[in-house]
Amino acid sequence: MNLIKALYLLLLIVIVGGCSPSPSDTVERIPFVEQLIGQMTIEEKVGQTAQITLDVITKGDDPYSSYEPLQMDNERIEDAVANYHVGAVLNTANNRARDIHTWHQVVSSIQNVATENTRLKIPVLYGIDAIHGGTYTAEATMFPQQIAQAATWNRDLVYQAAKVTAAETRASNIPWNFSPVLDLGGDARWPRIWETFGEDPYLISEMGVQMIKGYQGKQLSSATSVAACVKHFIGYSTLASSGKDRTPSEISDISLREYHLPAFQKAVEVGAASVMINSGLVNGVSVHGSHNLITGLLKKELGFNGLVVTDWADVENLHNRDKVASSHKEAIKLAFNAGIDMSMIPYNYVQYCDLLVELVNEKEISMERLNDAVRRILNLKYKLGLFDTPVVKPNPDIFSKTHNKIAYTAASEAITLLKNKSELLPLSKSKRILVAGPNANSMRTVNGGWSYSWQGEKAEEYAMEYNTILEAIENKFGKTNVVHVPGVEYNMHGRTYMDEHKVDFNAAVKAAKNVDVIILCLGENSYTEKPGDLNDLTISENQEKLALELANTGKPIVLVLNAGRPRIISGFADNMTAIIQTYLCGNHTGDALADILSGDVNPSGKLPYTYPMFNNSLGTYYHKHSEESKTPEGMYNYEGGFYQQFKFGHGLSYTSFSYTNLQVSQNELNNNTELSISVDVKNTGERAGKEVVMLYSADLYASLAPDVKRLRRFNKILLNPGETKTVTFSITANDLSFINALGQRVTEPGDFELTVANLSKTITLIK
Amino acid sequence: MNLIKALYLLLLIVIVGGCSPSPSDTVERIPFVEQLIGQMTIEEKVGQTAQITLDVITKGDDPYSSYEPLQMDNERIEDAVANYHVGAVLNTANNRARDIHTWHQVVSSIQNVATENTRLKIPVLYGIDAIHGGTYTAEATMFPQQIAQAATWNRDLVYQAAKVTAAETRASNIPWNFSPVLDLGGDARWPRIWETFGEDPYLISEMGVQMIKGYQGKQLSSATSVAACVKHFIGYSTLASSGKDRTPSEISDISLREYHLPAFQKAVEVGAASVMINSGLVNGVSVHGSHNLITGLLKKELGFNGLVVTDWADVENLHNRDKVASSHKEAIKLAFNAGIDMSMIPYNYVQYCDLLVELVNEKEISMERLNDAVRRILNLKYKLGLFDTPVVKPNPDIFSKTHNKIAYTAASEAITLLKNKSELLPLSKSKRILVAGPNANSMRTVNGGWSYSWQGEKAEEYAMEYNTILEAIENKFGKTNVVHVPGVEYNMHGRTYMDEHKVDFNAAVKAAKNVDVIILCLGENSYTEKPGDLNDLTISENQEKLALELANTGKPIVLVLNAGRPRIISGFADNMTAIIQTYLCGNHTGDALADILSGDVNPSGKLPYTYPMFNNSLGTYYHKHSEESKTPEGMYNYEGGFYQQFKFGHGLSYTSFSYTNLQVSQNELNNNTELSISVDVKNTGERAGKEVVMLYSADLYASLAPDVKRLRRFNKILLNPGETKTVTFSITANDLSFINALGQRVTEPGDFELTVANLSKTITLIK
Repeated sequence: MNLIKALYLLLLIVIVGGCSPSPSDTVERIPFVEQLIGQMTIEEKVGQTAQITLDVITKGDDPYSSYEPLQMDNERIEDAVANYHVGAVLNTANNRARDIHTWHQVVSSIQNVATENTRLKIPVLYGIDAIHGGTYTAEATMFPQQIAQAATWNRDLVYQAAKVTAAETRASNIPWNFSPVLDLGGDARWPRIWETFGEDPYLISEMGVQMIKGYQGKQLSSATSVAACVKHFIGYSTLASSGKDRTPSEISDISLREYHLPAFQKAVEVGAASVMINSGLVNGVSVHGSHNLITGLLKKELGFNGLVVTDWADVENLHNRDKVASSHKEAIKLAFNAGIDMSMIPYNYVQYCDLLVELVNEKEISMERLNDAVRRILNLKYKLGLFDTPVVKPNPDIFSKTHNKIAYTAASEAITLLKNKSELLPLSKSKRILVAGPNANSMRTVNGGWSYSWQGEKAEEYAMEYNTILEAIENKFGKTNVVHVPGVEYNMHGRTYMDEHKVDFNAAVKAAKNVDVIILCLGENSYTEKPGDLNDLTISENQEKLALELANTGKPIVLVLNAGRPRIISGFADNMTAIIQTYLCGNHTGDALADILSGDVNPSGKLPYTYPMFNNSLGTYYHKHSEESKTPEGMYNYEGGFYQQFKFGHGLSYTSFSYTNLQVSQNELNNNTELSISVDVKNTGERAGKEVVMLYSADLYASLAPDVKRLRRFNKILLNPGETKTVTFSITANDLSFINALGQRVTEPGDFELTVANLSKTITLIK
Repeated sequence: MNLIKALYLLLLIVIVGGCSPSPSDTVERIPFVEQLIGQMTIEEKVGQTAQITLDVITKGDDPYSSYEPLQMDNERIEDAVANYHVGAVLNTANNRARDIHTWHQVVSSIQNVATENTRLKIPVLYGIDAIHGGTYTAEATMFPQQIAQAATWNRDLVYQAAKVTAAETRASNIPWNFSPVLDLGGDARWPRIWETFGEDPYLISEMGVQMIKGYQGKQLSSATSVAACVKHFIGYSTLASSGKDRTPSEISDISLREYHLPAFQKAVEVGAASVMINSGLVNGVSVHGSHNLITGLLKKELGFNGLVVTDWADVENLHNRDKVASSHKEAIKLAFNAGIDMSMIPYNYVQYCDLLVELVNEKEISMERLNDAVRRILNLKYKLGLFDTPVVKPNPDIFSKTHNKIAYTAASEAITLLKNKSELLPLSKSKRILVAGPNANSMRTVNGGWSYSWQGEKAEEYAMEYNTILEAIENKFGKTNVVHVPGVEYNMHGRTYMDEHKVDFNAAVKAAKNVDVIILCLGENSYTEKPGDLNDLTISENQEKLALELANTGKPIVLVLNAGRPRIISGFADNMTAIIQTYLCGNHTGDALADILSGDVNPSGKLPYTYPMFNNSLGTYYHKHSEESKTPEGMYNYEGGFYQQFKFGHGLSYTSFSYTNLQVSQNELNNNTELSISVDVKNTGERAGKEVVMLYSADLYASLAPDVKRLRRFNKILLNPGETKTVTFSITANDLSFINALGQRVTEPGDFELTVANLSKTITLIK
């Protein structure tokens, strides 16, 4: 092995050094940009790779905070943008959303310096986390978070939501959006699972493509387009020991390519303009310092020609946190030579720029590498049209009812009916209702993190005009029919999102006596990233107790879940008559939920993840057979179960669907043919409804242990009562390929089982 | 990358096919064995690679069970051993320990056929799981399980225990022991963590070496030696999603080599005779079918020239469970060509032998590969002296008091005092004591699995003569001072080890009123492998409630933990006055614990694992810095903690020790020098006591993110009151090496912090 390794290394050196094209060779050469690069000093080039946060250039006591009302500090802008040539800015100031006029002032004051007080007049690139609508634009339309968008299984809604987000963000003078998240949402403990499209690589890819297309439109220079930034490349989300944010991942090359890579590959194929790097370690390797992952895999193998940006402070983290660089200078060298194009510094740009200039002068970073980075940055500024239009006039009319209608529709198609015993739902409008639980009357909990602020704690202030769950239920069923007793409340100014207290269980139990049904709203308060870490996935003890005490009243309970991740509810789920998952559906959660409770909307959401049953029994639906082993012959009993509360893809409707007539166009498939699979789906109930038709495949035998099944296609259709539609999918051998033990994507001859709902066919892949 | 991969593959093919030595070339050529191989038919060779379980050749209704009293079935022996040339047998019959005379009859009846009714008279190789003493020998000495042996941090005790086990096992006519487990015990959820030496690679290696030396002695042919079988090669224990037994592992090449490989490498270096393969998947690869891991890593790179055996039914599992072989025949081909030498079939030897003969005849398996396997098997039989002495006369005197004294000493040095508030312990002998909890009066719970039966459920029957915890406390403190009220009891004939019931909390609480102290014995009932799977690491709800109710009495409580893994106790740990971990200390647990409670023995055990505080906050002490991140400058708070109930290495004494005068022989170290580290340790208390002196290193910066610290040396010393000893360790640069991103073990220049207790020195590694 050592001999092989040595030869392999030798080969690598030969190839990287000599034969293969440099990744920069394939980056587009735009004459305007090339001419600029030709004129730039090292200092000007270095500045282009620097991104600072807004607080640094506002008036305030220190670089970390700003005075209110917000005022730009022209001296500070001058120093950063003119003296240090800083080329990019991000974020809001004081961690608070701003109205469209403020954004105009902020960006104008920066662009004025950039385009007037500098030698080359290069506009600044402004980036923001507008991850479910304009997070930091006060008037923006707030869509369901990504996990809920995935739960719609409706590609068009994801596209429409991204289109609106792009238009509103660009109207706020911000042309670059740090979205979508294409991380694999397969770890229920992770505090960012709600920022993903769920656990399935195919679902993530499909939704990611829609979101990128929605953001970028046909032309990046359009007034309604923003550049997408897919993140976090790569392997963020498989957090080995604790599921806590930014803790190390352990991922084999095989799994990296099988589960994590496809969505990023697809994003590059459809032209995503930029990529943000995973803040963490993968197998002990700091991704921000990994030439293998950034230059090798992303830029060369995937052929990514856009801009690679770090996550927050992650060059510094190579030194400060991960200890893979013995100084800040070493950290910059490591990251740049790994393939980073822009550093989200975000505060100390003086140190960064000075050190990077030194490194270039000392030839520790080559001019070719620096030029490549600058080219990628300037190409994007050029394509965004910033040289022509660095600032647009604010147009408040952009925030329209039409936009909010789309957000409402997305919420109504995301909300997922998980249980409906004895058809308790929908509720007639004359029902007397107790609304309880800490999530009943909050705009914060329905929006989650990245809503008006990082942790989402300012939602009550900004989203007043929208209905909480309670308000929407009151509107729908009549105030006189609804009584509200929370039982448990979050401490909205608590030290962590977990802080909550028992209010009065007795009052809730007493109130329950006089109603027909209880709507119990449980879940989590808002959070993201490390502040969202947990130690126990089980829903809080207070909430579990409240549920059990209310169940003791004998009244039917509709459990409404409103949480970023699937908190364990197995301690009381059996006592709930109906269960509805609302995820984080944004400002229209309440209205959409009320429409579903009343039957005005027929639910059609489906889980984009496996809902676990126990906190030490986690896992995704696409596990290996040995996760659910059966008893073999003989003396040893190796039986083992895969326990889950609700399956991936699960979601009920108020109508019923039947599947018949599964057909395949042929029984054999080779590498050059296409297989067509069709199935008849009938609405056998009394209401119109939408159904998500899913096609799964199972490789019966393979050289690498095959997953029990994998999602390959899906389509959401509307069926009127009695109506039948034929749904046709088409697949090729490539859809049945997998990553083998050598890390190669291969197709292997053999039998595959294709399954749609309860129907299946076996086909054979031949050479 | 694709080009590189292709060239790499090409290289691999060239090297494997042409240049490098075949692994069989380095296997010893013993003339006697070579002559035998020269005479053997394909069928005879194939038979040598077959291992069946005892039930197959006893009288019984089917191959899976035997009549009692046990009778060997000569016709069945004849068919297996003479007709099919089966060369190996394992296990007991009916999953029950047998006395030394029965073992003599069993093995004699097999060897009689092998050495009299076959052409070549090759004796059968009998193997057994005698993992903490002779599991299946009724009279055997039962030592603490491996996790508890590791907790002694006493190399000599591990060696002595293995020596006794070898002598008693060989006296039972069994020359081959499927022990030690060298898996990394880093996942608290895994039901076999107690079969490991804990979470630290160095501790595992050190203890593994002692156990192998104890088993194998100077000569394998000695009447007191057995062949060791280190297991389970490799990567069993990092169970990605659920911690459940035999579920898939996800391990990067880097982690495999950094954490999992060292103990196996060391075992090969000291001459371990055989290796058992990991039953599971690593990164989707079935280890039993992995040429890369078995032939590439184990046989070639580590140079292992001994016998490679499968785990139970694991060739069949390649087809039945993992689906990497489309038939049983393909499974045999895959495993053999990967490098398996012997298949623990264990039932259907006819199918196995017929198919393997076919495969050799069809040249799907080469004669060279078959000969290599047979050579490794016959070499072991030869070295064990089985050709000369296939059977020994039973000598019941082997089971001596001396042996039991060693087992007692091991238990007394393993038991770990975790908490001792207000110096509650030791207890004066006049104390009135309530003994409560389900683990108080059971020989089953103190022994754990692999004790007289697979799941350990027959311990009460076989270990009657030893004292339970209750009995030992009664003996020590006087029956009249002790009252026993269990509160919670296990259902000893329950469906799973988890089955338990609340007996009567009130009776326990009432009894507490009249005593001075409560000794509360909590933990788990016995289990191993998949039947030991759990869904929640928290100790059972009944037990937690019992602890809280007893705590409410205000009486001081000594919590005695008796469990295979660290079950979460954070819900009540603060309410306990003292906490003692007994692990699974075997038949002498009760006596050793009573001696510690009374102060007749001063505790000296130290945790060989991190005791977690929360069930979704797991991890080992040697994590990366990002597992416990501090708040960086600026607006985002990324603070995150590493929560643990008790630290790796933690363990209190009834005396106190002080560390002074840490010295290093020089401040710089290169690849050719040795560094000497010394420290003065003083017993500053009033009792003699043993202290484990541990040396840790921390690599301050490295090209792969370094672990926060790593154990490098330890030594357990005895100190009388007031006595000071100087402990000296010696390390080389290699002790500071690590596996880098390319999978190579390297030393990198830079600073390292060396720490002993509260003292530390920084040294520099230079080129």
